[in-house]
Amino acid sequence: MKVKVCIVGSSGHYGYVLDSLSEEVEIVAVSPGVPGEDINSLLSKLRQASIEPRIYEDHLQMLKTEKPDVVVINTHFHMNGKILQEALQMGIHAFVEKPIATNFEDLLQIQKLYTKVEGKVFFTAMFGLRYRPWFLTAKKLVESGAIGEIRLIHAQKSYKLGQRPCFFKKRDTFGGTIVWVGIHAIDWIHWISRLHYLSVYALQSRIANSGHGELEVTGACLFELEHEVVATLTVDYLRPQGAETHDDDRLRLVGTKAVLEVIDRRVILTDQTGTHLFESQAQGCIFEDFLNQILGKGKCMVTPEESIYVTHVALCAREAADTKRIVKI
Amino acid sequence: MKVKVCIVGSSGHYGYVLDSLSEEVEIVAVSPGVPGEDINSLLSKLRQASIEPRIYEDHLQMLKTEKPDVVVINTHFHMNGKILQEALQMGIHAFVEKPIATNFEDLLQIQKLYTKVEGKVFFTAMFGLRYRPWFLTAKKLVESGAIGEIRLIHAQKSYKLGQRPCFFKKRDTFGGTIVWVGIHAIDWIHWISRLHYLSVYALQSRIANSGHGELEVTGACLFELEHEVVATLTVDYLRPQGAETHDDDRLRLVGTKAVLEVIDRRVILTDQTGTHLFESQAQGCIFEDFLNQILGKGKCMVTPEESIYVTHVALCAREAADTKRIVKI
Repeated sequence: MKVKVCIVGSSGHYGYVLDSLSEEVEIVAVSPGVPGEDINSLLSKLRQASIEPRIYEDHLQMLKTEKPDVVVINTHFHMNGKILQEALQMGIHAFVEKPIATNFEDLLQIQKLYTKVEGKVFFTAMFGLRYRPWFLTAKKLVESGAIGEIRLIHAQKSYKLGQRPCFFKKRDTFGGTIVWVGIHAIDWIHWISRLHYLSVYALQSRIANSGHGELEVTGACLFELEHEVVATLTVDYLRPQGAETHDDDRLRLVGTKAVLEVIDRRVILTDQTGTHLFESQAQGCIFEDFLNQILGKGKCMVTPEESIYVTHVALCAREAADTKRIVKI
Repeated sequence: MKVKVCIVGSSGHYGYVLDSLSEEVEIVAVSPGVPGEDINSLLSKLRQASIEPRIYEDHLQMLKTEKPDVVVINTHFHMNGKILQEALQMGIHAFVEKPIATNFEDLLQIQKLYTKVEGKVFFTAMFGLRYRPWFLTAKKLVESGAIGEIRLIHAQKSYKLGQRPCFFKKRDTFGGTIVWVGIHAIDWIHWISRLHYLSVYALQSRIANSGHGELEVTGACLFELEHEVVATLTVDYLRPQGAETHDDDRLRLVGTKAVLEVIDRRVILTDQTGTHLFESQAQGCIFEDFLNQILGKGKCMVTPEESIYVTHVALCAREAADTKRIVKI
């Protein structure tokens, strides 16, 4: 069976799809997700892979005409959740940029629509960072009981800013830095600890954003999780251009038996016997994982339920920062 | 001139005094600060240094009889602030364990008393960690402008728990982990950034404290500082016994020009040109610094004003965690 794929937009992580091209995947058509979205980078990468998709101006026209098995949704961020709703209504599986919605209303609609098609239509948010070797290794170590019971968590997201497209500069189209960047760490924490969030307080600032309008360059969240587990998260777009890598992702899990850290793309565990550096597992492929679910060959590690839940928590964190209030989750 | 010193208690960091013994210092007498406080460890260390102080049962009797220039106060934590009030009333300079009070009432009294004797009587909280090479180096780099304007801060305090004395197990005598451990990081942030705190939210937990009663083993704070600067702090007593060092102190300062980190007792700066490891300065001596102020030979880096201010912020953070409310500072 060949999976027919359409791609909407090229403002997110369509690279996950290009990384997992195979005999089973046929990219039949592409379109912008909003009028004027420049999809030339996507087209040129497809051509490099000898793929010549049909090009549509309107994504809805494309989906109706092509009737794909899968739609990859990664346009300007405020539209991803709306297009996901359309996909669910049309019965098309969706590989969708995170956050899967930039407001609570869209998220609620997605949840309602998904309830109706659960078991028939599948979708996955692009929490691709879970598949990085160091996070897979951390997850495995925690599941093995190596750190005991998790009691305290700190996560860090730090990115270089550079020059971002115009739609990053408006909250309406961007969604906010906590929901665009911080959401990854919100996902790691839930995914690895298996704990639910109870409340969040957060702060953020646009000062020093190098002409990026409403984009927040700094932010921090304090989460209460089940069983009195406490988690902090800092997010920033101030990683200097001279840094070796684009991102400085970190996760520190303090357990009753050991402390586990993901830092500098390494996994370090300190326990009763000392400090140990762990060999990381191989990189995973989120789109391949998603396809395996569609094809009935496996279970995708990122579920629709988690995609909804983590987006909800991220929106709560943004609300906390916007209103400077503690928000119950 | 010889400085006559009395020591009250041995439940804190009197080691700073022993590290700075000199011709100028004469330790004339010691006493417990609360009935039954075992001061044998202090006495045995003094004997090793060929010092045979007079021993009193009652610290007030000692201070009245000996009329020292300086009193070192480090008894059970809830008493340090009360004895500091006595010292200020008696016109005796004090080198006092942090927090300088474990409740707002004592702190207010200290502030009032200090206002009356300002310029004549001096005191310093034992923020000795400022004098560690890596923190002195970080301070110097920030002052040099190396990181630009600070926008985001994360601090970490992580200690081994082991077996703590009984008075650690009661909030009334211990004060709480945020005010005993977290206070150091609250001090670093203010000292290095020169920014004031505006508000704090915090969480804490006693779960997994290995039979330590009311002692919190985990906690976290989210601070709002001036100019929309955001700071997070995690505190834990879960550092595994197998770890190389007792503490895992960290500070990450994200600036508009660079990111500066104190981690693993090293100072690392990432800027436009890459990542650089900085040679740390020499270790400083807080008691020597304090003595120099008393002797008119210099200015002590930790002022009475800062000692009061940082203790106040720590008490606000504890209140936030106790009440699960955002507390204005």
